[in-house]
Amino acid sequence: MLHWLKHYRRAMLAGDIGAGIVVAMMLIPQGMAYALVAGLPPVAGIYASILPPIVYALFGSSMTQSVGPMAIVSLMTGAVLAPLAPGGSGLYSVLAAQLALVCGIVLLVCGLLRLGFLANFFSRPVMSGFTVGCALAIAAGQVKPLLGASFPHWHAPSAMLGIGAVIALFAARRYLEPLLQRCGMPAHAAGVAAKLAPMLVVLGGLALASLLQLQEQGVKLAGDVPSGLPQLNLALSHAHWRALLQPGLLIGFVIFLMSMSAAQALAQKRNEKLVSNHELIGLGAANVAAMMSGGFPVTGSLSRSAVNFAAGAQTPLASIITAVLLAGALVAPTGWLALLPLPVLAATIIVAVLGMLELGTLKTAWRYDRGDAAAWIVTCGGVLVLGVEAGVVVGVLLSMGTLIWRASRPHIAVLGRIAGTEHFRNIDRYPAETQPDVLLLRVDANLFFGNVEAVGERIEEEVRSHPTAQHLVLVMTAVSSIDTSALFALGEWNASLKRRGIALHLAEVKGPVLDRLRESDLPAQLAGPIFLSTAMAAQKLHKGRDGEYAEYI
Amino acid sequence: MLHWLKHYRRAMLAGDIGAGIVVAMMLIPQGMAYALVAGLPPVAGIYASILPPIVYALFGSSMTQSVGPMAIVSLMTGAVLAPLAPGGSGLYSVLAAQLALVCGIVLLVCGLLRLGFLANFFSRPVMSGFTVGCALAIAAGQVKPLLGASFPHWHAPSAMLGIGAVIALFAARRYLEPLLQRCGMPAHAAGVAAKLAPMLVVLGGLALASLLQLQEQGVKLAGDVPSGLPQLNLALSHAHWRALLQPGLLIGFVIFLMSMSAAQALAQKRNEKLVSNHELIGLGAANVAAMMSGGFPVTGSLSRSAVNFAAGAQTPLASIITAVLLAGALVAPTGWLALLPLPVLAATIIVAVLGMLELGTLKTAWRYDRGDAAAWIVTCGGVLVLGVEAGVVVGVLLSMGTLIWRASRPHIAVLGRIAGTEHFRNIDRYPAETQPDVLLLRVDANLFFGNVEAVGERIEEEVRSHPTAQHLVLVMTAVSSIDTSALFALGEWNASLKRRGIALHLAEVKGPVLDRLRESDLPAQLAGPIFLSTAMAAQKLHKGRDGEYAEYI
Repeated sequence: MLHWLKHYRRAMLAGDIGAGIVVAMMLIPQGMAYALVAGLPPVAGIYASILPPIVYALFGSSMTQSVGPMAIVSLMTGAVLAPLAPGGSGLYSVLAAQLALVCGIVLLVCGLLRLGFLANFFSRPVMSGFTVGCALAIAAGQVKPLLGASFPHWHAPSAMLGIGAVIALFAARRYLEPLLQRCGMPAHAAGVAAKLAPMLVVLGGLALASLLQLQEQGVKLAGDVPSGLPQLNLALSHAHWRALLQPGLLIGFVIFLMSMSAAQALAQKRNEKLVSNHELIGLGAANVAAMMSGGFPVTGSLSRSAVNFAAGAQTPLASIITAVLLAGALVAPTGWLALLPLPVLAATIIVAVLGMLELGTLKTAWRYDRGDAAAWIVTCGGVLVLGVEAGVVVGVLLSMGTLIWRASRPHIAVLGRIAGTEHFRNIDRYPAETQPDVLLLRVDANLFFGNVEAVGERIEEEVRSHPTAQHLVLVMTAVSSIDTSALFALGEWNASLKRRGIALHLAEVKGPVLDRLRESDLPAQLAGPIFLSTAMAAQKLHKGRDGEYAEYI
Repeated sequence: MLHWLKHYRRAMLAGDIGAGIVVAMMLIPQGMAYALVAGLPPVAGIYASILPPIVYALFGSSMTQSVGPMAIVSLMTGAVLAPLAPGGSGLYSVLAAQLALVCGIVLLVCGLLRLGFLANFFSRPVMSGFTVGCALAIAAGQVKPLLGASFPHWHAPSAMLGIGAVIALFAARRYLEPLLQRCGMPAHAAGVAAKLAPMLVVLGGLALASLLQLQEQGVKLAGDVPSGLPQLNLALSHAHWRALLQPGLLIGFVIFLMSMSAAQALAQKRNEKLVSNHELIGLGAANVAAMMSGGFPVTGSLSRSAVNFAAGAQTPLASIITAVLLAGALVAPTGWLALLPLPVLAATIIVAVLGMLELGTLKTAWRYDRGDAAAWIVTCGGVLVLGVEAGVVVGVLLSMGTLIWRASRPHIAVLGRIAGTEHFRNIDRYPAETQPDVLLLRVDANLFFGNVEAVGERIEEEVRSHPTAQHLVLVMTAVSSIDTSALFALGEWNASLKRRGIALHLAEVKGPVLDRLRESDLPAQLAGPIFLSTAMAAQKLHKGRDGEYAEYI
C-alpha cells in the first residue's frame, strides 16, 4: 500500500500531471456516457470517477490502471437494475450504489481469501467473444438515443446530430493524429491528443445544440447535473439485498476480469509484477468507495488505462490528479453539462465500443483451434441472445467445458525398449521391443477427476488387446499430481485387474507424488513395489521374476 | 440398441427372472417412498418404475442398471416443484411429469452432442459430499412423517409405528442375512433375500395398522392408489416451461451423474465397457417415458442396481421383468396399498438413505489431500444450508475451482546438464551445471488458459534472478497441448523478452504440438529455430553461436 509514494521521485511529476489532465478530459464525456449505459443520470458517471480511483491508488497493485466507469460493467449494471426499479428513479440510483457495495464486498472477500486465481476461469477466446458480444449489445442499446427514436424510425434533428457526431469521431480517429503531426506535434503527443476528440465533439455538439436551440426541436439533453460534490449515500434497503447478491457475484467477477486484463497488458509493457490478490482488494475498496459517493460499479478500463500510460502516467498519482480535476469540474458551475445533447453522447459510446470489436482472437483461434473458435462464437452469441449475465455463465461453462473435454482425452502411450538401451519409448513412434507378459503404459497427464474415466477405459482396452499380459506398469514420468478421485481410481483398477490375474505396478513416480501416495493405503494394495525406473520394472517383472521385488522397494 | 437381445442365451434366463422378481419386491415400497420424497402421491413412484426401465433396456448401455425413482433426484424434484404448485394438486403431478420431459430432452440433446464427458464436472470428493448432504436432507425431511408431527412433538401411535419400523429395518439389515444362512440358505441367496426386508416391514406395518385400526387414532395412510395402468399425460402448460428449464438442466446433470456412478461401479465388476453417450441417450429416453406414464424424473440407482446384479441379472431383461410385475401389481386390486401407513414408509426412506452416509471418501481425502476434504465438506454443507439445487452448483464450482487452482501452480524446473552427459535435469534435485547466458526452463504441464499467468510470472521471476541470461529456452517435454490462450501468451512473452534483449526459444516440442504451432505465426516471431533437443539448444545458444541455427530448424 502506497509503496509507490515512498519511492516517488520529482522526475515522475510531469508525466503524472500530464496524464491526469488528459484522462480527466477523456473521463468527463466517457463517465457521463457510461452512466447512461447503466441507466443512470449522466452525473453519476462523474461521481463514480472521483473517490474510486483515489481509493484504488491506495490499495491497488497496478501503477497506471485507470479505475472508473467501464462500458461492459455499466451494461451489466443496467441489465441487473432494469427489472428492479424504474429508470431514473431515486430507488434506481440507490440500488446502483448498493450494487457497487455488493461487488466491492465480493471482491474484498475474494482478495482476503486469496482467490485471485479465479481470473483464470475465462479462457482468452471466451473473454474476447464476451467483449465483442457486449460491445455489440451496448452499441445496439445506443441506436435509439442516437436517432432520437426507435429504429427504423428517427427524429431528424437528433439523428443528424448523432450521425454527424459519429462521422466526426471516426474522422478524428483516422485523421486527427496525422494532422496534428503535420502541424509539428511530436508523434507521441499527437497520439495522446487525438484521444481528446470525444471531448471536442461533445463540446461541439453542445455548442451546436445551444446555438440552434435544438432542445426546442425535440433533441433530448443530458439534463440537470447538480453542482457540488456528491452526497454520501449510506441508505441500505435490506429488501433488495437478496436480489443484488447473485448479480453482484457475477459483476464482481467481470470487474476483476476486465481490470486484470487491462492491468496485465500494461504491466507487461512496464515489466511490472501484478499481484492478483492485491488487485482484488484495490477493486473491492474502489467499489465500496463508488457506493459511498453515489456512483455505480467501477473497474479498470483497458482503453482509458492505455491512454493514461501513453500520456506519461508513472504512478497512481495521475489517477488522483484526474479525480481532483473531476471534483473541481463538479464544484465549478455545471449548468452547461445539462445542455449536452444525448445523441452526441450516444455517438461517443457507439464509437468507443466499436473499438472493442476485436476479431483477431477469433481469426487466430479459427486457424489454430476450432474448439476455441467455437467457444468464442457461442459466448458472443450467448451475450447477444441470452443477455450479458447469462453470457458470463456461458463463458465460464465453455471455458471449463473445453478444459474438461481436453482433459478427458489424455495422451497415453504403450512403451517398448529401444533395442540395446535402457530407454523406453512410445511404440507407435519408435521401433521398440515389447514383452508379451509386461505391458508398459505411460500416462502423459496429471491424474485427476477429469481424466480418470478416460485413463481407466484405455487401460481396459490395452488389457483386452494384450491378453498375454500378466503385469501392467503405469509409467508416471509425466504425472505431477494425483488427486483423491484418481487415488480411488487407482485402487479400483488394481482390484479389477487383480480379479483377472493381472498385477498393477507403478514406475518412475515423482518424489512429491510418491510422498503423497505413501500417506494412502494404495502402496500396500499393489502387488509389488513402486519401481524407480521403467527399465527395472520391465526387467524384474518379465517372466515372473517377482521373487526379487523386495530389493527395489 | 438391443445388442444384448441378439446374444441372449437361455442360460441367462433364470438369473434375469430371479433378479426381476427381487427388484420388483424392492421397488414397490421404494418407489412409493421416493414419490413421497418428491412430494407426489405414492402411486406415482410405481408409474415411474414401469415404462422408464423398459425404454432404458432398449437404449441404455449398462446391462444391470435399474432405472426408476431415486432418492436424490426425488429430493431435487420436490425442491423444484414445491414453489410452483401446491403439494398433492393435479398441477403438481403434471409439472413433475413435465420436469421429467425437460430432463429427458436435456439428456437426449447432451447424448446427441456427445457431451458424455460432462460427468467429469464433479470430482469424487464433491460427489461424495453431495450424496451425504442429500441423504441428511432427505432423512431430515422424513422425520415429520415418521413421528406424525413436527419434532420435538410427536403423535404417539405414528411415532411408535415409525420408530418400530426403523428398529426392525436396522435389525433386519444386521441379523437377517446371518439368520437366513443359519437356516441353511446359501450365503449369496441370503444376502439377496435380506434386501427384501423393507417389503416385509412395510407389509408388517400394513397388517398392524389394519388390525389395530391405527387410522382412527390419527396415523396417516398412503391413500388411494388408483387401480389400472397410468393414463398417458401429454398436457403441457407452456407457462411453466421457462420455470422448469434451468432446474431441468441441473436435475438432468444429477441424473446423469448418479446413473454413471452406479453403472461404472457395476461395469467394473463385470468388466463391461460403458459408453457415456449411450447412457445419456438411455436415460433421456427413460425420462421421456417417465413423463408419458405420469411419473417424475428417474435415474439409475446404485443400491437397487447392486441388488439387481447380486440377484443374478444378466441383461436388461431383468428390468423388463420387474416392470411387467409392477404393471401387474397395478392391474390387480390395489386397495390394500392405500392402507400402507406413512410412518412405515418414512422409516424405509430414512434407513435407505442412512446407507448413503458414506464417510470413507472424506476420511481418505482428509489424510491424502486437505483441499479435496474441504471440497467435500463445503459441498455437503452447501446442500444442507443452501438447498440441493445450489449444492449442485457449489459442487461444480468447487470441482472446477480445485482444478483451476491446481492448474494455476504448475511445476516449472530450471534445468542444468549432468556433467559429462547429454542429460538435463532439475537443478534443485540433481547436481547439474548451468550456463550464465542460457536459461533452461522445463514446464511440467500442458499450457492452457488456466496456467499461462502463472507460467508468465515464473518466467519473469527467473529472468530477474538470472540477469546474465540472453536466451531463455522453454523445454516442452511435458507439454502435450497448447491452447489458443497459451499461444497468445507465448507471443507476448516473446515480445516482452525481446524488448529486454532476451531471445525466447522452444525445445523438445512434441510432434502433434509442433504441427499445431506451425499453423500459427509464433515460429516466425521467435528469434531462432525450435530445437529438437535441450542439449542442442544449450550447446548452440551458449556464447552466441546463433549463426549455426539454420541447420537445426
